[in-house]
Amino acid sequence: MRAARWHGRKDIRIEEVPEPQLRPGTVAIDIAWCGICGSDLHEYLEGPIFIPPHGHPHPVSGESAPVVMGHEFSGTVTALGDGVDDLTVGESVVVEPYLIAEDVDTTPGQPYQLSHDMNFIGLGGGGGGLSEKVVVPRRWVHPVEDIPLDQAALVEPLAVGHHAFVRSGAGAGDVALIGGAGPIGLLLGALLTAEGLTVVMTEVSAARKAKAVETGAAAHVLDPTEGDVAARVRELTGGRGADVGFECSSVDAVLDTLLDAVRPGGVVVNVSIWGHQPVVDLQKLVLKEIDLRGTIAYAGDHPATIELVRSGQVDLAPFITAHIDLADLVEQGFETLVHRNDTQVKILVRP
Amino acid sequence: MRAARWHGRKDIRIEEVPEPQLRPGTVAIDIAWCGICGSDLHEYLEGPIFIPPHGHPHPVSGESAPVVMGHEFSGTVTALGDGVDDLTVGESVVVEPYLIAEDVDTTPGQPYQLSHDMNFIGLGGGGGGLSEKVVVPRRWVHPVEDIPLDQAALVEPLAVGHHAFVRSGAGAGDVALIGGAGPIGLLLGALLTAEGLTVVMTEVSAARKAKAVETGAAAHVLDPTEGDVAARVRELTGGRGADVGFECSSVDAVLDTLLDAVRPGGVVVNVSIWGHQPVVDLQKLVLKEIDLRGTIAYAGDHPATIELVRSGQVDLAPFITAHIDLADLVEQGFETLVHRNDTQVKILVRP
Repeated sequence: MRAARWHGRKDIRIEEVPEPQLRPGTVAIDIAWCGICGSDLHEYLEGPIFIPPHGHPHPVSGESAPVVMGHEFSGTVTALGDGVDDLTVGESVVVEPYLIAEDVDTTPGQPYQLSHDMNFIGLGGGGGGLSEKVVVPRRWVHPVEDIPLDQAALVEPLAVGHHAFVRSGAGAGDVALIGGAGPIGLLLGALLTAEGLTVVMTEVSAARKAKAVETGAAAHVLDPTEGDVAARVRELTGGRGADVGFECSSVDAVLDTLLDAVRPGGVVVNVSIWGHQPVVDLQKLVLKEIDLRGTIAYAGDHPATIELVRSGQVDLAPFITAHIDLADLVEQGFETLVHRNDTQVKILVRP
Repeated sequence: MRAARWHGRKDIRIEEVPEPQLRPGTVAIDIAWCGICGSDLHEYLEGPIFIPPHGHPHPVSGESAPVVMGHEFSGTVTALGDGVDDLTVGESVVVEPYLIAEDVDTTPGQPYQLSHDMNFIGLGGGGGGLSEKVVVPRRWVHPVEDIPLDQAALVEPLAVGHHAFVRSGAGAGDVALIGGAGPIGLLLGALLTAEGLTVVMTEVSAARKAKAVETGAAAHVLDPTEGDVAARVRELTGGRGADVGFECSSVDAVLDTLLDAVRPGGVVVNVSIWGHQPVVDLQKLVLKEIDLRGTIAYAGDHPATIELVRSGQVDLAPFITAHIDLADLVEQGFETLVHRNDTQVKILVRP
């Protein structure tokens, strides 16, 4: 079958690879759509990060580069391994793309996202969504019912937002400030809006500001080049400040704005991945007793995330900005994100 | 009466000032002992920080420099203002040394430590413990029963530790790593030990390491120059890591060690005050979903703190390293802390 494999930086090849084999307890899926994630872009430009380097196999998958890429994907069940009797061939599904060691408790509610040797299908081995087929353990397969399969490919990044929301402890009626209207910031905004929060975003890119408004992901979009964001947030909240901030930009100044903009006793959730060590004005955290909380991926978030989409509370269609073929992955996918990143939210690839 | 007043950097003068006057709702106290705090030292060397500069009166106290210093003090009630009927003349008390605006709810349990214009008696005006007498609102006076008055002067910094403990969410049976065995780190260690936690400290100063052992403030003292502290903490915890870390040093590398040493899903409480903006490896916070929590001073912590001392669960005597006279404040107090800081835990001053 055809698959996109990472061989090195700026060296992702579309090539023929053996089809994955059905095993007991696994599910075979024909992939419908796969999104390109920011972490895929980091692997393309700066990898290997999550990808196991050549000759250093990952302890769970046993694989090292070259590996199949793609972890934001949807598809149709084509076969069920021995012992799997609660899914149906032909059913639409998404995959919670984890590689987790066998000694870890992966019951929903357990913090398996923090377990030793955690990695992702589509980065750490185990196949991936940027290929025609995948076989994954039953545990990681989530039915999506009648959600269109292109939208279903966005359940994975939406689940990242759901997990950040749960970590924040915020709820309906709260005011959230999201720092950065990239794909994760926008999807998080849609999710928080569906959960009854008032969402304010801070963003500088004209294209992303427009997207935040068009998609309804934010009630207010503030541009830090046009005024003091924290002061504007206080105006919007009767002097109080935001209840919660979400850092989705990996920019030191944006984190600083969130520390300024949340109320005393507020929470800032760090959703972004940091490629550098930021300078942080911790005195602000001290004097306002802010909680700065890390969040990574998801754990037990997929069912609630899927329900938000299935019920229509979150409409994922506006966040899909391109549908491309696997053959065009590098030129129309990665290179577009390298050069004109802010023109796109989510590029979907059909294998 | 005699009082120590801050006039400028390295300019603290022992001088005659008018005695404070009893007003309705207030309590007059003859001061027994007053500790010198790290923040007093910062005012001496780098101030004004909390102190209102000359000509800029604090909105609550109406005072600006020169102001009376000292906020860690104990004393004896000498008179009760109109409407105060639940204290007794002659009673031993300590003061929760707050200056809080009148529109703020100061009920115990309310977060009045985060309120607008918050400042401290002994820094922001309102008199102070480095003088013979003080008059303070009834709200801030806490009886200490039979706690010796020199030890009672340490209730204030111990309450800082109690507040940090409450903020941490930790409890009996947990393992805590304290970064820095200065006065706050040591008192926090004694408090956490009394609360049933196993306390590990990381410290480089030989004098402080010895004090951590002698006082029983820590079960284990680790020196980062003698090995990998985080690895040693994992050894002590069966591979797991500390449940909670407390940053009490204002040193970037110590905070980084705490991020390394806490378990996935762990908490790090930032107790220290930062005079610079540290570089923080937030990727560690992300991948382990750490909560980094700010904490400032105390709010509603004094009764529980006093009870820990009164009942004998925390013995404050070993943390008093000198008793000096007010006349010797600068030479035997501040200058000792400037030049030989780690030889002292708490220097007490008698006015």
